[in-house]
Amino acid sequence: MKVYLSGEIHTDWRERIVAGAAGLEVTFTGPVTDHAASDDCGAAILGAEADRFWHDRKGAQLNAIRTRHGIATADVVVVRFGDQYRQWNAAFDAGMAAALGKSLIVLHGPDHAHALKEVDAAALAVAETPEQVVACLRYVLTGALPGGD
Amino acid sequence: MKVYLSGEIHTDWRERIVAGAAGLEVTFTGPVTDHAASDDCGAAILGAEADRFWHDRKGAQLNAIRTRHGIATADVVVVRFGDQYRQWNAAFDAGMAAALGKSLIVLHGPDHAHALKEVDAAALAVAETPEQVVACLRYVLTGALPGGD
Amino acid sequence: MKVYLSGEIHTDWRERIVAGAAGLEVTFTGPVTDHAASDDCGAAILGAEADRFWHDRKGAQLNAIRTRHGIATADVVVVRFGDQYRQWNAAFDAGMAAALGKSLIVLHGPDHAHALKEVDAAALAVAETPEQVVACLRYVLTGALPGGD
Amino acid sequence: MKVYLSGEIHTDWRERIVAGAAGLEVTFTGPVTDHAASDDCGAAILGAEADRFWHDRKGAQLNAIRTRHGIATADVVVVRFGDQYRQWNAAFDAGMAAALGKSLIVLHGPDHAHALKEVDAAALAVAETPEQVVACLRYVLTGALPGGD
Amino acid sequence: MKVYLSGEIHTDWRERIVAGAAGLEVTFTGPVTDHAASDDCGAAILGAEADRFWHDRKGAQLNAIRTRHGIATADVVVVRFGDQYRQWNAAFDAGMAAALGKSLIVLHGPDHAHALKEVDAAALAVAETPEQVVACLRYVLTGALPGGD
Amino acid sequence: MKVYLSGEIHTDWRERIVAGAAGLEVTFTGPVTDHAASDDCGAAILGAEADRFWHDRKGAQLNAIRTRHGIATADVVVVRFGDQYRQWNAAFDAGMAAALGKSLIVLHGPDHAHALKEVDAAALAVAETPEQVVACLRYVLTGALPGGD
Amino acid sequence: MKVYLSGEIHTDWRERIVAGAAGLEVTFTGPVTDHAASDDCGAAILGAEADRFWHDRKGAQLNAIRTRHGIATADVVVVRFGDQYRQWNAAFDAGMAAALGKSLIVLHGPDHAHALKEVDAAALAVAETPEQVVACLRYVLTGALPGGD
Amino acid sequence: MKVYLSGEIHTDWRERIVAGAAGLEVTFTGPVTDHAASDDCGAAILGAEADRFWHDRKGAQLNAIRTRHGIATADVVVVRFGDQYRQWNAAFDAGMAAALGKSLIVLHGPDHAHALKEVDAAALAVAETPEQVVACLRYVLTGALPGGD
Repeated sequence: MKVYLSGEIHTDWRERIVAGAAGLEVTFTGPVTDHAASDDCGAAILGAEADRFWHDRKGAQLNAIRTRHGIATADVVVVRFGDQYRQWNAAFDAGMAAALGKSLIVLHGPDHAHALKEVDAAALAVAETPEQVVACLRYVLTGALPGGD
Repeated sequence: MKVYLSGEIHTDWRERIVAGAAGLEVTFTGPVTDHAASDDCGAAILGAEADRFWHDRKGAQLNAIRTRHGIATADVVVVRFGDQYRQWNAAFDAGMAAALGKSLIVLHGPDHAHALKEVDAAALAVAETPEQVVACLRYVLTGALPGGD
Repeated sequence: MKVYLSGEIHTDWRERIVAGAAGLEVTFTGPVTDHAASDDCGAAILGAEADRFWHDRKGAQLNAIRTRHGIATADVVVVRFGDQYRQWNAAFDAGMAAALGKSLIVLHGPDHAHALKEVDAAALAVAETPEQVVACLRYVLTGALPGGD
Repeated sequence: MKVYLSGEIHTDWRERIVAGAAGLEVTFTGPVTDHAASDDCGAAILGAEADRFWHDRKGAQLNAIRTRHGIATADVVVVRFGDQYRQWNAAFDAGMAAALGKSLIVLHGPDHAHALKEVDAAALAVAETPEQVVACLRYVLTGALPGGD
Repeated sequence: MKVYLSGEIHTDWRERIVAGAAGLEVTFTGPVTDHAASDDCGAAILGAEADRFWHDRKGAQLNAIRTRHGIATADVVVVRFGDQYRQWNAAFDAGMAAALGKSLIVLHGPDHAHALKEVDAAALAVAETPEQVVACLRYVLTGALPGGD
Repeated sequence: MKVYLSGEIHTDWRERIVAGAAGLEVTFTGPVTDHAASDDCGAAILGAEADRFWHDRKGAQLNAIRTRHGIATADVVVVRFGDQYRQWNAAFDAGMAAALGKSLIVLHGPDHAHALKEVDAAALAVAETPEQVVACLRYVLTGALPGGD
Repeated sequence: MKVYLSGEIHTDWRERIVAGAAGLEVTFTGPVTDHAASDDCGAAILGAEADRFWHDRKGAQLNAIRTRHGIATADVVVVRFGDQYRQWNAAFDAGMAAALGKSLIVLHGPDHAHALKEVDAAALAVAETPEQVVACLRYVLTGALPGGD
Repeated sequence: MKVYLSGEIHTDWRERIVAGAAGLEVTFTGPVTDHAASDDCGAAILGAEADRFWHDRKGAQLNAIRTRHGIATADVVVVRFGDQYRQWNAAFDAGMAAALGKSLIVLHGPDHAHALKEVDAAALAVAETPEQVVACLRYVLTGALPGGD
C-alpha cells in the first residue's frame, strides 16, 4: 500500500509514522521537506527571477511534479495540519486526493476541528496523533487492533 | 489475477476458495473478518463515541480504506451471500464492483436467487459453492475444466 | 438537479418526496415500481422462460437499462431501506452510486442503523423520514432551512 | 459557461462579479453563503448532535452535496481567499477543481501570494480584484479587452 | 433517452422501431444508411484514391466521425445482425458500446444465437423483432408492458 | 454537433467554414482570433510584466481557459495549418483533441503532408480546403454528398 | 509490453507470433483456444442448462472474465480474422479495444479488406501475415526493421 | 519514475539527459530516433505504397504504437524543440501529455519562447539545457539542488 504524507513540515510527524509502521507493507512518499530547497528550487535550477511572484511560481510548479506524482500513485493520502502557518497547500492536496478518490486520513489537533470540518468530512479517518495514523494503517493492512495480539 | 472476496464472514468459504486455488496465479484480498475488530476498530483507534451511530460510522469508514482498496485493485470480485443477516454491505460491494467494471462472481444458495436477481444480473458467473468459484478461476486462468487433464 | 429514488417500493415515500419538493428545480427518476411488471417484464416482452432463474435474469437486465440510466445521470441518489424484504438491490444501487461519485442520501429507520453502517458511511446524509430528504434537497438548492423564511 | 464561486463569504466579492458579468453568457453557482445556516444545516434538518464534531460533520456533508455538484458541473472555478480565517475549505475546493481539470482562477491580495503559491501554480489566472475576474470572463467569452470597443 | 441504431442497412428494421416508438421520449441516431454514399463518401469529398484499400479507409474514417459520436452520446445502443453479409462493423459497434458502458440491445434471429453468444452476453436484452425492441424501450421509459393499459 | 476551429488566424478559413455550414446543426467555437488581444490579454487584465516570458505566460494561460473549454466540449476539432509561422499551438491542440478522443479533422495544403504525418495519422479526415471540411460536416450530419440531391 | 491475441482459433497464427517474438519483452495473453472447452465451460462448472441459449450465455460470460481482463490490461490488441466462420467475437473484441484506447493491429487476408474496413480504420496497423505482426512488435520495441542489423 | 523523451532527434540531448540521470530511479523511453527507419517502417513491414501520403500514414501509425504507449505510461514527458524543422509531432506529443495529465517539461532555447508560449503554459518546467532537465529530475526524486551536498 502506498501512502503519501502531505502537509506540515516543521515537526517530526512523518518520522514517527514511518518508524511506527516499520514491518508493515507500506511505501511512504511525500513532498521535499527542506523548506529552503522547496522554496528556491525553481530559481536555483531554471534561472533566477527578479519578481518574487514568479520565483515562487517556478518553485511551486517544480515541486508539483513530485507532489502530484505522489498523490496520483498513492492509495492513502495522510494530510497533517499543524498549529502554525496557513497551510493552504495541505488543504489543496486534500482536495486533490478527494477528487481522485484516494482514501484520505486527516491529522490535526482538536482546536482545528471546526475550521477543518469540510476537509474532515471528505476523510475516512480523522486522527489527532501520528500514532493513531500508524494504528489505522496497521489495522487496515493486518486487521490487528492496538493492544491485540 | 487479483481476486477480492467480499461478504459473509461466518463460514469458511474464503478458506475453501483459497485452499482450492493453491497453485493458481491468484492473489486474494478481502475485508477484516474478525467481526468484533471490524465493528470496534474506529473507536478503538480513533477514540470512543458516546453515540452508537458514530461509533459505527468511525469503524465503517476505517474499514472502507481496506475494502475500497481491495475492490479497486481487484480484477475479479467474488461476493458471498450467506443464510443469515441482511448483508447489505455485500450487496453494496457488488454495486461498487459493477460500477467499476470489475468481473463479478456471486456466490449464494438457490433460495436467494429471486431476491438477488439484480445482483446476479450484473455478474459474469453465479455459483452455489466455493468449489465452483475455484473451478471458474482455474478455467479462466488455465483453460482447464473440472475432470479434464 | 436530478435525483434518483432507489429502493423500497411498498410505501408512499417517493410520492411524499416528490410532493414535498414541489417548486424546487428537481427532476426525479426511479425504477418501475409496479412489482409484478418489474418481475415479469423480461419474459413478457422477450419470451417466456421455463426456468425461473432465467425468467428473473431477463427481467432484471431489462430493468437495468432503466435503473443504470437513472443512476448514471443523477446528481443525487436517494436509497430507501424499508422494514421488509432483504432489499439487496437497494444496497447494490447505493454501491453503484458511491462508485460513480454521486451524492448519496440514505433513508431508513433507526433499527437498521447498525446493519447499514457501511452504506451510511458512504452517504452525505442519513435521513429517517421522506420529509428530511425534502428538507435536504431544499437546503441544497436554495439555502433555506426548515422554519426559516 | 458555468462558473463556481468558492471561498470567502464575508465580503461582497460574489455580488461584484455577478453584477460585473451582467450580459455575459455565464451562469454562477456557489456555496450557501449564510454562515449560520451553513454551520447548522445538518443538525437542523437531520437531528441535533451532542458532540460538536458530529454537528459539524453533518453540516459539512450536507453542504458537500451542493458544493461538489457546483464544482463538478463548472467550467471555471473562482476561489477567493480573504484576509481573515484559515479558509481551508477554499483551498480544498481549489484542489478538487484542479484534480477535475477545471479552469481555476484564484482571487487574493498580494499579501497572500507566497502562502498561496501552490494554489496559484495550479491556476490559469491569479487576480487581485473581482473586477479583474470579470474582465477575464469577458475576454474569455467575447475576446474583448478592458477599454476596448 | 438517446438510442443509437447500429448494424444491418438492407431491411426496414430502423423504420419499424422509429415508427413503433412514436410518442416516446426517444431520440434515434444511426449511421448513414445509403450504402453507396457510405462506401464512397471519403473519396467523393476528400479526393479519389487509386488503391481500393485507401478508398475504403477514407470512407470508413469519415463515417466514424458520425458513428462514434452517435455511440458516445447514446444511452442505449441497439445492434442489428441480419441474415446476409459478415457485418463485422455491427459487432465492432457492439464492442465499443459495451466498453463505454452503454446499455446494449442485440437484435437477431435465432439462427445466429450461437455465433453471437459473446455479443449477446454483453447485452441487457436480446430481441428477435424490431417490435420487441420497441416494447423494451416503452417499458424502460414508461413501465408499461405490451397488452397492459 | 459542436465543432472547434483551431489553428491559423491570418486567413478567412473559419469564415468560409461557418458560411458554408449555414443551415447545418453545428455550433462553432474557436480561439480569440485578434492576434494583438490574444498576445496581450494577460498583462492587460491582470497586470503588466517586466519580463516578456511572463507576459506571454499570463496571456497564454488566460487564453487556455477559452481554448480548453472549446476543445473539451467539442465533438469535432478542426485544426488548420497555414503556410506561415510554426503554429505549434495548432499541433498542441491536435494532440489534446486526440488524447481526449475527439474526432479530428486536419486542414492543410499538400506541401505540409510529410511534416504533419503524425498529426494526420491521428485524424479521421485530412482536407486541403475549407470547403472540403464543410462537405465532411454536411455528410456526417445529413448523409448528403457534394453534387447529390 | 502486453499483447492480447484475439480472434480465430483454428490455425497456428498465435504460435507463429509467439515463436517469432522470442527474445522480445512481450507478454502474450489470449482467450481459451480449446473450442469445446470454450463452448461448454459455463455448464460444466456452474451446472447444465436445458436451453442452448442459456448454455451459451453461461459459457460466454465465464469466458468474458478472461477476455476482458486480457484486453483491459493489454497495451496492444491483435485481432485475427480467418477465412471461416463469422467471427463476430473478434470484431466485438476489436471494438472494445478501440473504445479503451488500446493500440489495435488487425490481421487478415486481402479478401476481407472491404468487409473489415471499419475495423481496419480503427487500427494502427493492418497485417496479412503473423510474421508482419512480429515485425511490427519488434520495430515498436527495438526500432529494428526486417533485414536490418 | 518513468520519463518519456519526445521531440527533436538530430542532437544528443537524450544521451545527455540519460547520462546525467545515472544513479536516479528513472526509466527513460522515447520514439525510434533513426530518422530513416522511422519514416519507412510502415512500408518496410506492411508493404510498399505508391502514394507518398499513405507511405507516411503507415509509418506514422506504426510509430504511434510506440509513442502512445510511451506517453501513456510516463509520469513525466520531456518535449524538446530544436532549431530546425517544424517539429509538429513534438507539439502534438505535448498536447497529448497535457490532456492526459502528465507532468510536462519543455526544453527549448530562448528564441522559441514566444512561439511556444501555449506549450510552455501547459508545462510544469521550461528548461533551456538538458542539464537543467536532469537537475529537475534529481530534485524531484531526491530533493537535492545543484551544488548542494
